[in-house]
Amino acid sequence: MATGVFDIIHLGHLHYLEESKRLGDELVVVVATDETVRKRKHEPITPQKMGCELVASLKPVDKALLGKEGGDMFEIVREIRPDIITIGYDQPFEPEQLERELEKRGLKVKVVRLPHLDHDLDGTRKIITKIIEFHTIEKKLKAVERR
Amino acid sequence: MATGVFDIIHLGHLHYLEESKRLGDELVVVVATDETVRKRKHEPITPQKMGCELVASLKPVDKALLGKEGGDMFEIVREIRPDIITIGYDQPFEPEQLERELEKRGLKVKVVRLPHLDHDLDGTRKIITKIIEFHTIEKKLKAVERR
Repeated sequence: MATGVFDIIHLGHLHYLEESKRLGDELVVVVATDETVRKRKHEPITPQKMGCELVASLKPVDKALLGKEGGDMFEIVREIRPDIITIGYDQPFEPEQLERELEKRGLKVKVVRLPHLDHDLDGTRKIITKIIEFHTIEKKLKAVERR
Repeated sequence: MATGVFDIIHLGHLHYLEESKRLGDELVVVVATDETVRKRKHEPITPQKMGCELVASLKPVDKALLGKEGGDMFEIVREIRPDIITIGYDQPFEPEQLERELEKRGLKVKVVRLPHLDHDLDGTRKIITKIIEFHTIEKKLKAVERR
């Protein structure tokens, strides 16, 4: 099981999913809901349904589904019952701590952090970050104008 | 054979490629070079090599390769020898005219324009257009500042 926002698909995502797939037989990807994206990062650029369809169309991915709205993050793990959960190099989880939290809930899952593979991608990531910032600012501006 | 810029991959691209794949056995996608993108549309957001790898990772795609720098557009058709070329609904080619131009060069290829499938995508496309405009303006600004 891999997780992420996947708002604009870039090579960093693809490499994370390829590495995740290599660790098992079937790769299920949980795509963050718009609600979660808003809470944690920024205004979503593409609606959740679209992100999910795009992720499902990537070769390493066997299945993509949306995270649960509002509920706790362990609910979807209970549903998928993965053997392994992969964490991207920039995701804010500690593998060992997450394993312990899962075990407390009766979920025996190996959590693996994947290394940062693509040193040449930082440029793209910066561009994407800028794009996202721009989009968020624009939304805020519109909200202010509407007042 | 399908063609495109694929600078930021969105559902419109995916649907175009899925429909293209349905028409034949093997789908080869020609990704526009950065040079071509600059000439025709705007400053590229992701370098051509990355666009090519991302397109190749999509399930309907068997192979993705870069267009030819500088040369005429028929060169790559001669190399791939496709049975069918698909044109996206918004690509500026007339299928019949393109077929005639190909035939003049000894290339017997069926050209098919695919319909606009996704009515709910206009929002995303507008956002992407804005993102691209922003990026182009930013590049121009930097060029001016460097003077």
